[in-house]
Amino acid sequence: MAVYTEVSDAELAAFLEHYDLGRARALKGVAEGVENSNFILRTEAGVYILTLYEKRVDAACLPFFLGLMNHLSARGLDCPQPVPMRSGGALGELNGRPAAIVTFLEGVCRDRPDARDCAELGRALARLHLAAADFKGVRENTLGPSAWPQLFAPVAARADDLSPGLQTTIARELAYLAANWPEGLPRGVIHADLFPDNVLFLGAEISGLIDFYFACVDYLAYDLAVCLNAWCFSPEGRFDAAKATAFFDAYRALRPLSAAEARALPVLARGAALRFALTRLVDWLNVPPGALVTPKNPLEYVGKLEFLQQACGPADLGLALEPGA
Amino acid sequence: MAVYTEVSDAELAAFLEHYDLGRARALKGVAEGVENSNFILRTEAGVYILTLYEKRVDAACLPFFLGLMNHLSARGLDCPQPVPMRSGGALGELNGRPAAIVTFLEGVCRDRPDARDCAELGRALARLHLAAADFKGVRENTLGPSAWPQLFAPVAARADDLSPGLQTTIARELAYLAANWPEGLPRGVIHADLFPDNVLFLGAEISGLIDFYFACVDYLAYDLAVCLNAWCFSPEGRFDAAKATAFFDAYRALRPLSAAEARALPVLARGAALRFALTRLVDWLNVPPGALVTPKNPLEYVGKLEFLQQACGPADLGLALEPGA
Repeated sequence: MAVYTEVSDAELAAFLEHYDLGRARALKGVAEGVENSNFILRTEAGVYILTLYEKRVDAACLPFFLGLMNHLSARGLDCPQPVPMRSGGALGELNGRPAAIVTFLEGVCRDRPDARDCAELGRALARLHLAAADFKGVRENTLGPSAWPQLFAPVAARADDLSPGLQTTIARELAYLAANWPEGLPRGVIHADLFPDNVLFLGAEISGLIDFYFACVDYLAYDLAVCLNAWCFSPEGRFDAAKATAFFDAYRALRPLSAAEARALPVLARGAALRFALTRLVDWLNVPPGALVTPKNPLEYVGKLEFLQQACGPADLGLALEPGA
Repeated sequence: MAVYTEVSDAELAAFLEHYDLGRARALKGVAEGVENSNFILRTEAGVYILTLYEKRVDAACLPFFLGLMNHLSARGLDCPQPVPMRSGGALGELNGRPAAIVTFLEGVCRDRPDARDCAELGRALARLHLAAADFKGVRENTLGPSAWPQLFAPVAARADDLSPGLQTTIARELAYLAANWPEGLPRGVIHADLFPDNVLFLGAEISGLIDFYFACVDYLAYDLAVCLNAWCFSPEGRFDAAKATAFFDAYRALRPLSAAEARALPVLARGAALRFALTRLVDWLNVPPGALVTPKNPLEYVGKLEFLQQACGPADLGLALEPGA
């Protein structure tokens, strides 16, 4: 729920003079996104999203994010397309913040995706990876394995306040992942946060992928691991092998997985579970008392991690090794 | 900044089956309104606002609010028009809350209205009062003079925390208003909260009036007093007689003011200033520590009140008595 920076009519009119979008016909702050201020902007030319980038987003990365969305749109992927200013650039300034206008995508998030939705997701993720293959931008994964110990250190002593034994669970998992993280898997641009609230559906089909502000270059299979955890468990936290198999099969019909990627899936999934458990734990322990935002419960991802720790191999996670692998 | 109740895709689809609006094409929570959960809803039929009424709104009053918007729309006033369900009613239920869909109005709020905007406001307010004249619904002003002492009592002892002497200032003003509140002025439906953020402009013209959830039956001239305070002061709190005169002249060109209404304006304006000072004071003193919502500063309205206390008559507020009155 976020509009950190208000935009007046006069400020908006001045900003729109940098674009060929005509005059503003409506502006409504959007109650989603925790990093930035987002508005639905209607102009004489159409409907858009106006984003003011707040301090939690590293401004140096904005050209990567906007360039990526532009690249993907140009290759036919349904994602927000940055609208160029008359100067040619996509990144302006509004109220002292970096700001951009992107196209508005129709569609509604799935609250409870089923196996067919997971197959749609697999196809969309493979298309994203393939369309980004020739994107030249580079951004390291700032929430990847090397960041996890640093995320944990400041909150470690308070982890047991949330759940007794949690500090030990996380410390052991960090050690396991440091010793077992795979090397040499295929790398490329990943979304890194493709949760159901970042995927829009119209009817049975995906109409758009949004929120590329965690995108980075990392193992492509790590993106599958993030999606596996976010899409293939029931609301009660039970793993759903049918959803996972639908997801993986649809993905590799477009981009085949190597045997090494498939074998690495369990450890990648453990890492992805720990990553979201850690960032949620940090948010949980840092929420001001009385705040109107309810942070997401870290224990959801601790529960998923505990399930993943029991998996003996990719088949336990719905991913059969390919024939001959 | 308000979405208190989330709406899933499945819940929305089920709700839309009560309407002839086709299927949902987009749903975005809106970061405005502090009383209810509001969403921009796009369906196959067009763009709408979906509102879930939260507990701060008295559900018994919803038929008055929705009936009023329907009445005004039917008379050509640009305001949200409730969309009827197939059953014929306008009030449904979603996620256990009363809920309604109204038409979306284009337009952008004026952050710093000028005198020409104030004239537009005067015409729009007169049209509202005239269009509502034959509306049969009744709702008393629950934030009128009889409510003010009850609003003040629980926070009186803490008023001086905000500004030394404030408790005495308010107590004296309550006594003055109780002794001097006018009687027998023309009554009718008033908006009661027609601040700049509830008035949409397209270019130089008003395209819509929104947020009728304080509307009630009271002195029509009290609505002018609310607008005078909200529109005819500079951002620094200085009264702007040119804006006020533009506002009043435009209003009474469509609905003439009686001499009694004009004479009552200073005391009505003092009452309107106190009403917003009081509700803001209550919100200010009750905001939880660390909350992300910044309540509006009550002292803005205390300052306006102090200015109004010095006014010797309506002419000091930009309202000349009509010739012969």
